[in-house]
Amino acid sequence: MKDTIFTLISENPIQIPKLRETLTAMNIVDVGDIFEDLDMERTIQIFRLLPKSIAANVFAHIVHEKQQIIIEALTDVEVGGIIEGLFMDDAVDFIEEMPANVVNRVLSNVTPERRDVINRLLKYPEESVGSIMTTEYMSLREDFTVLEAFARMRENRVKGIHTCYIVRRDKILLGAVSLKSLLLAKEHERVGDLVRTHVISAQTHDDQEIAAGLFRKYDFLSLPVVDKENRLVGIITVDDMVEIVEEEATEDFERMAGISPSEEPYLRTGVFMHSRGRIGWLMVLMLAATFTEMIIGGFEDALLLIPILGTLIPLLMDSGGNAGSQTATLVIRSMALDEIHFKDILKVWWLETRVAFLCGLLLAGINALRMIIFAPADTDPTYTAVILTVSVTLVVVALIANTLGCLLPMIGKKIKIDPAVFATPMITTVKDTVTLMIFFYLARAIIGGI
Amino acid sequence: MKDTIFTLISENPIQIPKLRETLTAMNIVDVGDIFEDLDMERTIQIFRLLPKSIAANVFAHIVHEKQQIIIEALTDVEVGGIIEGLFMDDAVDFIEEMPANVVNRVLSNVTPERRDVINRLLKYPEESVGSIMTTEYMSLREDFTVLEAFARMRENRVKGIHTCYIVRRDKILLGAVSLKSLLLAKEHERVGDLVRTHVISAQTHDDQEIAAGLFRKYDFLSLPVVDKENRLVGIITVDDMVEIVEEEATEDFERMAGISPSEEPYLRTGVFMHSRGRIGWLMVLMLAATFTEMIIGGFEDALLLIPILGTLIPLLMDSGGNAGSQTATLVIRSMALDEIHFKDILKVWWLETRVAFLCGLLLAGINALRMIIFAPADTDPTYTAVILTVSVTLVVVALIANTLGCLLPMIGKKIKIDPAVFATPMITTVKDTVTLMIFFYLARAIIGGI
Repeated sequence: MKDTIFTLISENPIQIPKLRETLTAMNIVDVGDIFEDLDMERTIQIFRLLPKSIAANVFAHIVHEKQQIIIEALTDVEVGGIIEGLFMDDAVDFIEEMPANVVNRVLSNVTPERRDVINRLLKYPEESVGSIMTTEYMSLREDFTVLEAFARMRENRVKGIHTCYIVRRDKILLGAVSLKSLLLAKEHERVGDLVRTHVISAQTHDDQEIAAGLFRKYDFLSLPVVDKENRLVGIITVDDMVEIVEEEATEDFERMAGISPSEEPYLRTGVFMHSRGRIGWLMVLMLAATFTEMIIGGFEDALLLIPILGTLIPLLMDSGGNAGSQTATLVIRSMALDEIHFKDILKVWWLETRVAFLCGLLLAGINALRMIIFAPADTDPTYTAVILTVSVTLVVVALIANTLGCLLPMIGKKIKIDPAVFATPMITTVKDTVTLMIFFYLARAIIGGI
Repeated sequence: MKDTIFTLISENPIQIPKLRETLTAMNIVDVGDIFEDLDMERTIQIFRLLPKSIAANVFAHIVHEKQQIIIEALTDVEVGGIIEGLFMDDAVDFIEEMPANVVNRVLSNVTPERRDVINRLLKYPEESVGSIMTTEYMSLREDFTVLEAFARMRENRVKGIHTCYIVRRDKILLGAVSLKSLLLAKEHERVGDLVRTHVISAQTHDDQEIAAGLFRKYDFLSLPVVDKENRLVGIITVDDMVEIVEEEATEDFERMAGISPSEEPYLRTGVFMHSRGRIGWLMVLMLAATFTEMIIGGFEDALLLIPILGTLIPLLMDSGGNAGSQTATLVIRSMALDEIHFKDILKVWWLETRVAFLCGLLLAGINALRMIIFAPADTDPTYTAVILTVSVTLVVVALIANTLGCLLPMIGKKIKIDPAVFATPMITTVKDTVTLMIFFYLARAIIGGI
């Protein structure tokens, strides 16, 4: 369908009726996509062709840079029309990305009521429930009849009609009624009487992760948002939540790999932005490696005497690193999904300790076997001592790595530092340092004379 | 509210009416949660107390082990009642987790039609669209009137009524109509005439990730599922999709950390299962470290002559590891979110190369500075040569790490091996081996005489 559009656009002169008809038959998200590949002139030309009924809707699905081009080309009246046609959350999303002059022009072309709402929504902290909610919801006073409810639904432009929220006269949230139960009810029943169960809601200042947790748990299509006095002020719809769930996961992925999260898609981020997001942790982690350098340097004599010790360092460091990142990944993800909480810290640690012991023993066994099979021709008694040293170290390394891998993220979350950011560099540094110390001291104790 | 319930349950004798009333007023998901903490006897006792109208719904939200206890305690008729009351996807979810004898008992107590549907759904491949869809959808023949549509809605028990699917007499999917437009339409309009835009659907054998992509892109509340002949056979609702999106992300997290994905929550997985999921990659990665051991062993003479080279190995390996995992993480995640595709491989590689060059230069610079500031007292001319060697190696390491970090996941996905599984061990091994080779050869070339 996108191809048809591009063929139609490239014709000269453009077949306006045919093009408009095709655009109208397309899903608005796909229509929005088309603008990505259009130049400035075409962008404005094609946007003007859109029927009024879908223009605002399409606008919400266009990339920000093209939105700006369009707004700058439209008349004040047209701008007002578009912004009035957007759902509040989309309007706020768009305004947040625009430069100051565009924002001013936009705000001065909407009704005062709408401007007030937008300004209020813009004030909520980033990633708070208030900042992602929309104000177009279906609320019904408890004394409305079912008949009145349907009349309301026909009149109001709301983002989701599948759930109606029942409020008192003073806007205090009382409950929720599904459209299905309205359809099944008698015309003159009071909607307040249809409320069956306790209603679950989020507060404007809650973190969006709390809302995500509620969606995950309760299978909502929309979640009501209340202020501190429990008055209904907005809703979050599940389609927005899918995006937020993905965004949160992406942020965790990035933080765990030591990347400062960015909201821009991969290919839209330039070389400098990419580098800036990564260089920080690369530096920190590289400088942290200085510790290992110092330790190895301190045992230079031992290495000169038994060079094979040096060749085993990467194996120990890699194994610890892998075990630690396995544990950290599982724990961070489980916390993100609300499967474990700080109160489980001892349970988690005990589980990880046993896993570490088991895995460590297996690793040590396999490695010992390998070293025995591939023993150099000129083995001396030291070789056995080296195998013993490495084996014990491997078990200890696993224990340390898994302990750090579970405790650091959990403590990080408790003291409100992102567990991913807190855990990754600390695990690497502490684990490497401790591992090498243990390795060399053990070597000294077991092998002797070094 | 959970606390109220536990207080009520612990009373002796149990206040049945009060308990039942409280249970009915609770969200069914919360009711399902209660069973997690109940013993066998209480589980059965409390489940029997539930009003018939919510029993099946609650059942769908109980953990599998308690579901089994309940089913085993109920009469055949009661079992039939519960299973008939479940939505098809929940019924299939439940049956998939039960042992054979429970499955047989369940299937022999449902209507033949239902049994057929369940058997059909069970046959779809795991993680396919067919395996997660449900068959309770609202479909309307194109020649129905709006009035008939509403009558249908009142009669049928469907999972989502917010979108009605319009089909031909032979069940071929024609389009979708929102409940909102039905409410706004005249009673005698044909529903077929309300279809405005091209309908987007998934096929039963598509991977669930395709469905997730469509939900992400189009903000659907439900997605129609068709067979090869484009006949409507089911829908996927967005609430199920939120779970699947989270599951897919969790799987990617786990695979990237070298853990075999498990569907069980963290604390419900035993020590052996945890160890089994992790030991595989730990072994592979440990044995892969043998290569680095061999290389270091091969340059023993150089290390004996200039021991400082050995102390720098961890720094090089860690920096490369971090850069590689940053790139791999970004690329794997961007592919999962459909932001980049195989056709972009050169673009991605070129971007990563430039990022690597920039980051590598910065790392090399900072490290050189550090080595100059903290130079040992007895530096000889070799020290400068070592700094030069490390600096050049750091840039080369970054280039190799980023190249592997982007190419391997993309190629892995292309040849249908999970990019996370394919990339992680290969990146570590290849990067470590190549880095050390370059480091030592460069040292030999620059320093000379080793």
